[in-house]
Amino acid sequence: VSPNDADAPPRYGIDLNADVGESFGAWRIGEDEQLIPLLTSANIACGAHAGDPLTIERTVRVAVEAGVAVGAHPGYPDLAGFGRRDLAMAPEDLAASIVAQVGVVAAFATDAGVEIHHVKAHGALYNAAARDPELASVVASAIARVAPGTRVYALPGSALLAAATAAGLRPVAEGFPDRAYEPDGSLRARSHPDAVLTDSARIAERAVAMAREGRVVAVDGTTVSIAVQTLCLHGDTPGATEHALAVRDALTTAGIDVRAVA
Amino acid sequence: VSPNDADAPPRYGIDLNADVGESFGAWRIGEDEQLIPLLTSANIACGAHAGDPLTIERTVRVAVEAGVAVGAHPGYPDLAGFGRRDLAMAPEDLAASIVAQVGVVAAFATDAGVEIHHVKAHGALYNAAARDPELASVVASAIARVAPGTRVYALPGSALLAAATAAGLRPVAEGFPDRAYEPDGSLRARSHPDAVLTDSARIAERAVAMAREGRVVAVDGTTVSIAVQTLCLHGDTPGATEHALAVRDALTTAGIDVRAVA
Amino acid sequence: VSPNDADAPPRYGIDLNADVGESFGAWRIGEDEQLIPLLTSANIACGAHAGDPLTIERTVRVAVEAGVAVGAHPGYPDLAGFGRRDLAMAPEDLAASIVAQVGVVAAFATDAGVEIHHVKAHGALYNAAARDPELASVVASAIARVAPGTRVYALPGSALLAAATAAGLRPVAEGFPDRAYEPDGSLRARSHPDAVLTDSARIAERAVAMAREGRVVAVDGTTVSIAVQTLCLHGDTPGATEHALAVRDALTTAGIDVRAVA
Amino acid sequence: VSPNDADAPPRYGIDLNADVGESFGAWRIGEDEQLIPLLTSANIACGAHAGDPLTIERTVRVAVEAGVAVGAHPGYPDLAGFGRRDLAMAPEDLAASIVAQVGVVAAFATDAGVEIHHVKAHGALYNAAARDPELASVVASAIARVAPGTRVYALPGSALLAAATAAGLRPVAEGFPDRAYEPDGSLRARSHPDAVLTDSARIAERAVAMAREGRVVAVDGTTVSIAVQTLCLHGDTPGATEHALAVRDALTTAGIDVRAVA
Repeated sequence: VSPNDADAPPRYGIDLNADVGESFGAWRIGEDEQLIPLLTSANIACGAHAGDPLTIERTVRVAVEAGVAVGAHPGYPDLAGFGRRDLAMAPEDLAASIVAQVGVVAAFATDAGVEIHHVKAHGALYNAAARDPELASVVASAIARVAPGTRVYALPGSALLAAATAAGLRPVAEGFPDRAYEPDGSLRARSHPDAVLTDSARIAERAVAMAREGRVVAVDGTTVSIAVQTLCLHGDTPGATEHALAVRDALTTAGIDVRAVA
Repeated sequence: VSPNDADAPPRYGIDLNADVGESFGAWRIGEDEQLIPLLTSANIACGAHAGDPLTIERTVRVAVEAGVAVGAHPGYPDLAGFGRRDLAMAPEDLAASIVAQVGVVAAFATDAGVEIHHVKAHGALYNAAARDPELASVVASAIARVAPGTRVYALPGSALLAAATAAGLRPVAEGFPDRAYEPDGSLRARSHPDAVLTDSARIAERAVAMAREGRVVAVDGTTVSIAVQTLCLHGDTPGATEHALAVRDALTTAGIDVRAVA
Repeated sequence: VSPNDADAPPRYGIDLNADVGESFGAWRIGEDEQLIPLLTSANIACGAHAGDPLTIERTVRVAVEAGVAVGAHPGYPDLAGFGRRDLAMAPEDLAASIVAQVGVVAAFATDAGVEIHHVKAHGALYNAAARDPELASVVASAIARVAPGTRVYALPGSALLAAATAAGLRPVAEGFPDRAYEPDGSLRARSHPDAVLTDSARIAERAVAMAREGRVVAVDGTTVSIAVQTLCLHGDTPGATEHALAVRDALTTAGIDVRAVA
Repeated sequence: VSPNDADAPPRYGIDLNADVGESFGAWRIGEDEQLIPLLTSANIACGAHAGDPLTIERTVRVAVEAGVAVGAHPGYPDLAGFGRRDLAMAPEDLAASIVAQVGVVAAFATDAGVEIHHVKAHGALYNAAARDPELASVVASAIARVAPGTRVYALPGSALLAAATAAGLRPVAEGFPDRAYEPDGSLRARSHPDAVLTDSARIAERAVAMAREGRVVAVDGTTVSIAVQTLCLHGDTPGATEHALAVRDALTTAGIDVRAVA
C-alpha cells in the first residue's frame, strides 16, 4: 500500500451466488442464461433433486464462458420433491450420494477445463446440515472425499460451516439479501408472509449492508451482525434477473468488488 | 529373449471381465463378493440402468481390495428396463449421460486410489454401438471426454471398436465363452434355445480356445477366428461363480496368464 | 325438426382437446387453469411421461369444475424424455403400463364423480401406434381392459383408430389446426421450419375448415380431405391460451357447436 | 347352534397375509409363486416403493388364481429406499399418492374380476401411520376415497386403526408371529439381534397362540394380550415359504380356520 492510499476507503469484496441448472428434461426452471453472467459463482444442480446430464453440461459451459466459478449443488435424491422434503437417508447412503453428485458436476467441469470451486447443499439438505452436527459431518466428509479443500457455502454459525472446517474444507458464510431475518440471525420461516422480499431496491440495499458492514436489519427493527463472504440470489423467483442486476449495480456503486470467493 | 528360451512355449495372457454392481437399493443381482476376486477387470454399473451410489462405492472397494481393475459400465438410463431396451436418445443426451455415468464411477475410483481402467457399454447400448457407426462415435467421443485414453471393451469387428480407435481410445476385443457363435462370428441371438452354454467344462474349454488360439467353434461346427484380449463372464446367471472358477482354472492349467489388459 | 327449419344450415359439432396435467413436482408446463375451460375434452397426463399424483388430482378437478370431459393421456414411462423418445418396451410391459396409467386417472376421475371419457396416447407412443398395427393392437387392447368402450383419439387413417374399432372402442379422428399437413394428409415433420403455425387467425380459420368442411390446405396448396371429430390444441406453446380463444370464437361465429364427442 | 354342538370347541379363524409383488424390473424379491398360495390375503406393492405395472398384473393374477384376497400395499414413493425411509411428504401429496397407488392395483384387480379386499401400508409409512394420528388420518381418508369401506390392516392400538374406523373403513388388527414383542405389546426394534425369529416351529407355535388365545410371550417372559384377525408372514426373508407352510400346518392342526378376513 502506497502512502497515497492512506485515506482511501477500505476495499471490500463479495461473491454473488445462485442455484442454477435446476431444469429437468422438458421442464424449465430459472433463466440461467440471463442470470449466470450476473453472478460470480454458480451452484449447479447435480441430477438428484433437479438437473439432468445435458442440463449440467450446458450450465457448466454457460458459467465457464461467463467466467463464473463452477460449484456443485447436491440435494436429497428426490426429483418429485425437488429436494425440499426431509428424507431419512442412512449416513452411508447420503455420503455416497454426495460423492456421486459432486462427482458428476466435477466430470463436466473437468471436461470444460475448470475445477469445482465450491459446494452448496440444496433445500432440505441445506437446512438439515445447518442444524444437525452429525449430518453436517457426513456431508462435509463426503465433500472432502470428492473435492478435497473446496469451499463450502452455508449459513453463518451453522453446523455445516463447523463441519467443513473440521474436514479440511474452506467455510464460506452466506447471506440472503432477499430473505427476512429474525433477531437471532436466523432466516424467517417461509410460512410468514413477509419472509421473502420482492422489492429490488430494498434487496440491493440489504446486499450492500451485508457486504460492507456485515449487518442486516431484522424483522423487529434491530440490527443483526452477519459476517458473510457470499450473497445468495434466487434464480427461480419472478424478477430474479432484475434483482440480480439491482444488487450488482448497488454493490458496484458502493465501491464493493463483486468477485468469486478467493 | 535369451537363447535358452528358444524352445519355451509362447506366453499368452487374457483378461477376465464381468458386469458387476448391478444391484439397486434393496434389490440384489449377482454375487459380486464371490465373483469379483475371480476376475481381472470389473465392469461396474453406473446408476443409470442399475447400481446406486452406495453400491458403486462398495463395488469399487471390493474390486480395489481384490486387485481387480475398475471399469465403468454405462447403459441407457432406464432402471425399469435394466438398460436392455432400445431408447432413442438424442446424441447430445446420450453423450452427456455417458460422461455423467463414467464420471460417477471415476469419482469413487479416485476416492479409492485408482483410475478408470476401461469402459464397457451395457445391454441395448452395447448392441446398438456395435452395429451403428454414428451412435458408436457418440459413445466413443463421450468416453474420451471423461476418461481420455482409456480402454473400450467391445465385440471384435464392431463399430464401437473402430470408433474407439478414432477417438484416441484403446480398443479391446471381447469374447463370450458361454455364448454360442454364428459362423460369421456374431453372437447367436438369445431367442435360440442354444444361445447360452451352461456346462462349466465346455465354457472353460472354449475360454482356453479363444485365449490361446483365437478361435471358437460355431453352431454349425465350423471354426471361426476371433482374436480377443478379454473374456466376458456373466455374473447374474445361475452358476456364475462356478463357471468363473472353471474358466480360471482351465486357463491357468493351459499356461495362460490371467491378467488385466495392459 | 319443424318445417321452419327446412332451409336452416346443417348443424355441425366439434370437440376441442388439449394435453394437460403435464407438470411434475416443482416443474410447470402449460397454463392449465386458463386453458382447460376453453376445451371440451382434456387429455390428462398419467404420471409416466409427465404428471404426478397431486397434479393429476388437481387437473381432474379443474376439468370437472369446468364441465370438460376427462380423458387419460398415457405415454412411454420416460420422465427424462417427456415420452417423446421411442422406447422398445415388450408388448406385455407396454400393455400393463397403459392399464396402470389409465387406471390412475380413472381413480381420480371416480373420486371426482366422473368417468374416463376418452384416451389419447402421447408423443412417441402416439406416433408409433399410428403407424404400427401390432403396437396399435397392444395399446387398444390395454385401453379396452381398463376403460371398456371408451373413445380413442388418434390420427385419421391411423393403425390405432383401426385397432380401437377392433377392440370394441370408439374411434375419434383428430385434426391439428396449428400443424402443417402434407398432401397425403400426414402431419408435416417438426424438422421443417413451417411445421407449426403460430398465427392465431390462421389457426382459427383452419379449425373452422376442418370442422365444417372436413378439409385442410396442405403445404403445396392442395386441399386434403380429413374428416375429424376433435381438434387438438397445444397447451405448452407460447400463446396457447390465445390460440384456443381464437379457435373457439371462430367456431362459434361459424355456427359450429363446440362440444365433447358424444 | 344345535344342542349337539354344546361341547364342541369354539371355532376360530385367522387370516394369513404377506407383502408380495415387490420385484422391480429385472430385480426379484420374494418367491411369490410359492408363497401366495399359502396365504389368504396378499398385500401387493403398488409401484411406488416397489413393483412395476407388469409385476402388479402378474401378482394379482397369481393371487386370484389361488383364491387369495387381493390387497394394495402402498408405501412412500421411494424406489431407492424401498419405502423404508421417512419422507416428509405434504399431506396432499401423500393423499394423492395413496389414491394413485391403490387405484393402480384396483385397476388390475378389476381387470382380473375381483375387488380390492384390503389395504396395508408399507415400511416407514406403516410405522408413521401407527404412531402419528394426523398422518394416519391422511392415509385413512385417502384409502376411503379410492376403496370406500375396505379393510385396513395395522397394528393393534395404532393410530391408523383408529383413523380407519373414523373414515368408515374396517380396521383389522395384525400380529407378527416371527417378530419379538416388548412387554407393552409393541414390536421389538429391528436393531436388537433377537428382533426376528427364524425357527419355523416357534413361529408356528406363536401364530397359534395369537390366533386362538390372543396372546404372545414378550421378550421378558410376560404374556401380552394382542387380539388380532390377521397374521403377517414375511416373504422376503430366507425360509419364508417354509415358515408359511409351518404356520399353516400348525393352525390347521389346532383346528383354526385359515381364511381371509370377512
